[in-house]
Amino acid sequence: MRENQRHTSRVSVLGLGRMGAPIARTLLAQGHHVTVWNRTPERAEPLVRDGARVAGTVAEAVSDGELVLVTLLDHEAARDTLARAGERLRDRVVVNLTTSTPQQARELAGQVAGHGAQYLDGAMLGLPETVGTTEAFFLYSGDAEAFARHHAVLELLAPAHHLGTDPGLAEFEDLALLGGGYATLAGFVHSAALLASVGRRASEFVPLLSRWLTGLLAFLPELAREIDAGAYADGASTVAMNRTAVAGLVEVSRAQGVPPGPHAALLDLLTRREAEGHGGDSFASVVEPLRRPGPPVG
Amino acid sequence: MRENQRHTSRVSVLGLGRMGAPIARTLLAQGHHVTVWNRTPERAEPLVRDGARVAGTVAEAVSDGELVLVTLLDHEAARDTLARAGERLRDRVVVNLTTSTPQQARELAGQVAGHGAQYLDGAMLGLPETVGTTEAFFLYSGDAEAFARHHAVLELLAPAHHLGTDPGLAEFEDLALLGGGYATLAGFVHSAALLASVGRRASEFVPLLSRWLTGLLAFLPELAREIDAGAYADGASTVAMNRTAVAGLVEVSRAQGVPPGPHAALLDLLTRREAEGHGGDSFASVVEPLRRPGPPVG
Repeated sequence: MRENQRHTSRVSVLGLGRMGAPIARTLLAQGHHVTVWNRTPERAEPLVRDGARVAGTVAEAVSDGELVLVTLLDHEAARDTLARAGERLRDRVVVNLTTSTPQQARELAGQVAGHGAQYLDGAMLGLPETVGTTEAFFLYSGDAEAFARHHAVLELLAPAHHLGTDPGLAEFEDLALLGGGYATLAGFVHSAALLASVGRRASEFVPLLSRWLTGLLAFLPELAREIDAGAYADGASTVAMNRTAVAGLVEVSRAQGVPPGPHAALLDLLTRREAEGHGGDSFASVVEPLRRPGPPVG
Repeated sequence: MRENQRHTSRVSVLGLGRMGAPIARTLLAQGHHVTVWNRTPERAEPLVRDGARVAGTVAEAVSDGELVLVTLLDHEAARDTLARAGERLRDRVVVNLTTSTPQQARELAGQVAGHGAQYLDGAMLGLPETVGTTEAFFLYSGDAEAFARHHAVLELLAPAHHLGTDPGLAEFEDLALLGGGYATLAGFVHSAALLASVGRRASEFVPLLSRWLTGLLAFLPELAREIDAGAYADGASTVAMNRTAVAGLVEVSRAQGVPPGPHAALLDLLTRREAEGHGGDSFASVVEPLRRPGPPVG
């Protein structure tokens, strides 16, 4: 019995939207006690058939779970819903998986702590159908002890990464990933427009681009080491070399009537670095004009 | 004898720089007759030990090879060197692998055709040590018959892709690949700066970003189909949804003191599309303000 208790958690899921429902289902399938609450209770019905208990109120749901997963529509919904739980939050661990800004995550952490609960913010990277698989991954930040205590349960949802105690960190990392993705997509769209100007189809271009970008990813660790060290003396690919290449790209784009878009900002950075005497530094040094020193991760 | 002749080509390599030397070495290793020429003949010495013949003049080198591979420093060097070959170019196939712009490739094609030779332009994607392996890939454009005739030899250097008869196409595709790569790098650098503002190291970020971008590449074929068709009605990820996400990214970047760089141009595009009534179109429709209709590939 004791052995069994160590492995069975009482988890409450607030919000049964596109991510909340598969999360509850995954936990039920692994034998955990799951209580669900949703603004419109009809959405809970399929989960009841899987063994979930439906709470009539937020306070009741929060009372049921030592671990409270929040997957609501937006920050305002999460804030107002948790406010209704009030003192029932005491000694609970609240994991807020609702889409939020870093600042909103920090605010909610304060609100939850004020009621005596531990707080983790989470960002979910993956589609609903990948919940419960290693295709998704979830990022967490906030209370390290709470994360360690519930790590095994959180791992059931997706590989779980704890980034640090600042509750905003998971959202910053999420934005950094989104930003990396959007930059890649913006580059693809620009290249597709450039090739359309000479009659080449984007579909023909994709296999070569995928191959090229996959190869490029292998160079990111080296760039990251240079950025982390702030040391750019060893690069074989210099600011000056890359400025020439990007300038050529921008020039040809303009000649074809395609706005240089994502490349104009990079060219500005490279040109500025070279003008300031850093033409012989490695490419990664373009990060220097962008970054402000931040606090160490807590 | 006849069987043997079908498989052995006479190839001349003009320029023995970082790519020319491994190209000549690869062809020698496969049993082809290779003649080399370099402005400073000392660079040919290691290749002579591998079986290469050294030509004293460009004209002599061009006379020796039915296939003439040009890997010189820049367009001007290629143009002037081939001018010295003059009428010896007649009935040769010239493959210009020198770094060039699309316009330079087209100009050299005209120069070479004026001497009665067939022209292929080439762009080499890969490092010197990957020549002769499937890790590199080379793009070609220009004379389709010449490419077909020498395809087997060109495949020895790297997987060989012929894109069309316009000699500029290989350089356009090369720029489109470089542009895709630079956009990804610009996004990485921006994300590294954003994370540095909260004390997170770029090296910790790279594994998650690599994973995220690898997943993203799986969506490019769908975007490409929409772009090629100019039809954006079926997207689950709309202009409006993505405008909201990119606006949030730009806002948080600014709040952290990090210039939004590559994302500002994308936000402008998304905002413009939405203002023009295309908020419900799929994301890929941001290509529309960028592209000008081009001629069909010849």
